Amino acid sequence: MTQEKPATAAMLAIGDEILSGRTKDKNIGHFADTMSLAGIDLKEVRIVPDEEPAIVTAVNALRERYDIVVTSGGIGPTHDDITADAIGAAFGRLVGEHPEAVARLEAYYEGRGLPFTQARRRMTRTPEGASLIDNPVSVAPGFSVENVHVLAGVPHVFQAMLGNLVETLPNGMPVMSRSVPCPLGEGDIGGPLAKLARERDGVSIGSYPRFAEGRYTTEIVIRSRDETLLDEAEAAVKALIGEVS
Amino acid sequence: MTQEKPATAAMLAIGDEILSGRTKDKNIGHFADTMSLAGIDLKEVRIVPDEEPAIVTAVNALRERYDIVVTSGGIGPTHDDITADAIGAAFGRLVGEHPEAVARLEAYYEGRGLPFTQARRRMTRTPEGASLIDNPVSVAPGFSVENVHVLAGVPHVFQAMLGNLVETLPNGMPVMSRSVPCPLGEGDIGGPLAKLARERDGVSIGSYPRFAEGRYTTEIVIRSRDETLLDEAEAAVKALIGEVS
Repeated sequence: MTQEKPATAAMLAIGDEILSGRTKDKNIGHFADTMSLAGIDLKEVRIVPDEEPAIVTAVNALRERYDIVVTSGGIGPTHDDITADAIGAAFGRLVGEHPEAVARLEAYYEGRGLPFTQARRRMTRTPEGASLIDNPVSVAPGFSVENVHVLAGVPHVFQAMLGNLVETLPNGMPVMSRSVPCPLGEGDIGGPLAKLARERDGVSIGSYPRFAEGRYTTEIVIRSRDETLLDEAEAAVKALIGEVS
Repeated sequence: MTQEKPATAAMLAIGDEILSGRTKDKNIGHFADTMSLAGIDLKEVRIVPDEEPAIVTAVNALRERYDIVVTSGGIGPTHDDITADAIGAAFGRLVGEHPEAVARLEAYYEGRGLPFTQARRRMTRTPEGASLIDNPVSVAPGFSVENVHVLAGVPHVFQAMLGNLVETLPNGMPVMSRSVPCPLGEGDIGGPLAKLARERDGVSIGSYPRFAEGRYTTEIVIRSRDETLLDEAEAAVKALIGEVS
């Protein structure tokens, strides 16, 4: 079996409220978990304010560097929701009302007896040629332009949209991981572990300090897309801990 | 009194474990809160893996664009802790053991009856000319090179180091904020609020959807460095809500 190189991804979170500390981001961790499970390598995350030049610069840097770019935030009905315009500017495409998005929102507000205000119509605006991403929670859709996928920032809407999107992305093999607890601190296991990590291809070995009950221990995490390599590395790490302890 | 322009800041979180989803970042929110209180404008956050080229590219982009850059992670004793080397590479400076850091760690490990291993010595490495940032929790220091400040990634150590660092940063005036609850959804208040926001200089007006008990309401947050402008904008927003409701 040929092992294809996994697709790479970046996330761009858009919003003054995250940078001011007012809102604590809950999407990055969920996105990272989702990419891991899909076998896609998340390589970079950026957070930028609701300012068009900052969004355009980040989108253009990320979409050229990575296979997949997912944005969160800035697609609601208010004046500070400028993501659609910024994505249009990044791609040099006009932005206008998407007929299918208009139809969905018209039906939704009519069904609830609410007026389809000018502010709500803002949520139907996409760059030309965009395809919609379904929003099973509050109807107003996200959209994709080439490899850039624009999702809402409200966590339960972000998660629902991402669930719809992820099935359409170019997936690799899932990454498997094993966690090995080590009773030694990083200062004791670090040297020998570095040597072991250098000797093993196809696995990534990370170590994470833990502090509890007045002493440091280490959690060693081994990751691979190949179960045999993972088994072998896990056995080697356990043997190493036995030797050093 | 002349109002100086506030300093700008960026944060760079370094670590495979955040991008893989294994660790959920807890430093970005704390950093954003700390900058807000200090009156410093946090303008961008990036997360990159433990890979030297990615760190160098990000550090060099951010340190030219913003007044202050703070990094988290990658300064522990293991082979995947490469931040000191990457910062050295970004500035074109040699990296070696910092004598004061060596003295502090030697004393610390001697006092605890622990060997000062080669792995632990890694934590004394800084680029030439770096100044140390005290670590009151676990001694191994962070460091500053020009406007780049390198802190640990473990949240309680990050917070302690940031507390020491922030007093030395070029502070502006604190940003004040007022939160006004609005019983209408964003779709109803969005249009009139946008008009009001355009008319007011020196204040930033954001709106955040809230969903509870089956309906959407909106929280409107007004921010300014000037209390009079803040008072005036708050009164205007409250009057607007009264008109539209």
